[in-house]
Amino acid sequence: MSLQNDLILRAARGEQIERYPVWLMRQAGRILPEYRAVRSKLSGFKELVETPERAAEVTIQPVDLLDVDAAIIFSDILVVPEAMGLSYEMVEKKGPWFEKTIHDESGLKWAESDFDVEDRLSYVLEAIKLTNRELNGRVPLIGFAGAPWTIFCYMVEGKGSKTFSEARKMLYANPSLAHELLKRITKVTIQYLKAQIRAGAHLVQVFDSWAGILGTEQYAEFGLRYLKEISEAIQEVPITLFSKGAITSLPALSKLDCQTIGLDWNMHMDEARKLVGEGRTLQGNLDPCVLYGSHELVANETKRMLDSFTSSRHIVNLGHGVYPDIDPDKVRTFIKTVKEYEITS
Amino acid sequence: MSLQNDLILRAARGEQIERYPVWLMRQAGRILPEYRAVRSKLSGFKELVETPERAAEVTIQPVDLLDVDAAIIFSDILVVPEAMGLSYEMVEKKGPWFEKTIHDESGLKWAESDFDVEDRLSYVLEAIKLTNRELNGRVPLIGFAGAPWTIFCYMVEGKGSKTFSEARKMLYANPSLAHELLKRITKVTIQYLKAQIRAGAHLVQVFDSWAGILGTEQYAEFGLRYLKEISEAIQEVPITLFSKGAITSLPALSKLDCQTIGLDWNMHMDEARKLVGEGRTLQGNLDPCVLYGSHELVANETKRMLDSFTSSRHIVNLGHGVYPDIDPDKVRTFIKTVKEYEITS
Repeated sequence: MSLQNDLILRAARGEQIERYPVWLMRQAGRILPEYRAVRSKLSGFKELVETPERAAEVTIQPVDLLDVDAAIIFSDILVVPEAMGLSYEMVEKKGPWFEKTIHDESGLKWAESDFDVEDRLSYVLEAIKLTNRELNGRVPLIGFAGAPWTIFCYMVEGKGSKTFSEARKMLYANPSLAHELLKRITKVTIQYLKAQIRAGAHLVQVFDSWAGILGTEQYAEFGLRYLKEISEAIQEVPITLFSKGAITSLPALSKLDCQTIGLDWNMHMDEARKLVGEGRTLQGNLDPCVLYGSHELVANETKRMLDSFTSSRHIVNLGHGVYPDIDPDKVRTFIKTVKEYEITS
Repeated sequence: MSLQNDLILRAARGEQIERYPVWLMRQAGRILPEYRAVRSKLSGFKELVETPERAAEVTIQPVDLLDVDAAIIFSDILVVPEAMGLSYEMVEKKGPWFEKTIHDESGLKWAESDFDVEDRLSYVLEAIKLTNRELNGRVPLIGFAGAPWTIFCYMVEGKGSKTFSEARKMLYANPSLAHELLKRITKVTIQYLKAQIRAGAHLVQVFDSWAGILGTEQYAEFGLRYLKEISEAIQEVPITLFSKGAITSLPALSKLDCQTIGLDWNMHMDEARKLVGEGRTLQGNLDPCVLYGSHELVANETKRMLDSFTSSRHIVNLGHGVYPDIDPDKVRTFIKTVKEYEITS
């Protein structure tokens, strides 16, 4: 099926674009009353993730309601550790929680990597197929997975944390176990991303949400090493790597075989461009809190960011997922401002 | 009273030192069984903070038990918002919690800045005097306060958070209220630090724990601007500024009128030195998780950090507070390694 809007794919590949493409992390979610209506009829977040028809429905909502240039499949990065043997619960207002966690070699029995990924994660693949059928080529569909380091954090720590000291402890106390676990996650993640692409994902993004808690050298050893494997394995579609907070690793990250690098809001686009160079597309990075301001402020701050671009290799997004209590009309102002902005270069 | 060990003061001022001074953030705390013994006899964390005899006792413990080159007064950065009118509770395993928070101008009634700081925070000043009497000049005593931006975060958000989106929201939605609140916190903080110095603090440190959640420009406007005021007001003793995670603000931070800049573990010392230059002392920055490794690993990683120093203007510390479940013997190995290391330059 041919795409009517392939702007994000061209931007990712560094091809000519007539304007910047724009989408939002967490665009399918609690900011939309229409999402909350679907969600309220289900038992919880996980039922939504695991029901392809409903997942497809909320994936498409922001395309209809916000006019974004891409859909991203509604799912969670934690479906991977669950498929490997560690199931999670999503605790309201607290976040994910794993009953079992991995602390020594005996825990590897909960980290399978030799199973049929397409079978165990069929509900995600089914949601991708349904979404594309419904979208009918209007915009590309983004698939995604968590980076091995971030998934490792949850499999060892068992929940969110400011420091992930349990996870980081293993890097010093038992680095060979850490590498074994990271290898297994990497293997499953590559298979999972390839399955998403076969199911119809036009672009994939890898989220390394906890990249920023490691020093530069440790992130090279336990983070980038596995992102390298993944990005080299994925040649079918463009891949975006988002290593949140890993400012000092940006130069190394930009040497990986990827098309796009995601940025959080802590760094100015022109600073990032200097570190990354012209060979990669940058994605981001408006501070999501800007959307708490007036419409005028949203438009002005968005324009200020766009003015700071020194190349046309950009995909516009926030620097983080949109916060759930943001007024969708502020999101519309953000999107409209990007769409009306003329690229001069 | 003359100090028998003034190494940390000389290192802060960039004077000649025979070896690197070393202390640990959170050295007075749960890692020591002797601390836990004192704490268990009291109703909770706040009673310990508010009882000068006990606060002095646990402040001195790491000097006796770990042989550190400085004591830091046992207290909490949240005594300042409490003195201003917002009392907090320390919830076991969850952290601080404020019943009231500030969201509009009416909340400024809980942000007094016109009161007798020495009176309302007399318990801290009393603890400083008792500690110095007991220490009898063995090592310097460090006083401290939270940076205005970090205190602001708690006064608006009311608890810890990964994104502090409520606090950051105000920066866009009501910047003049944010500045009014930051001004008041700054005024009280300067008075509080000066009172600590009069009571006997030999050096003061300002902790900006949430610096890293702001972009470079916003941190300049809402963070550095007030750190500048504080550092210019404190001329009596050396001052250390620790803006955790604010990597892109390091060059601007190093232009402030301070002696020492604290660093977390995410950045290599030689990278930081390039950004800061030779005119400031650097404090930090071993990854606190190194102390989960074997004694050999602790010694090797500590030496590797020391080898990376390109100047003698260093105070050795971890890049974050020591984690509560660390074996004190590992801390001793860290300290011993630093003390035995020969400065060659």
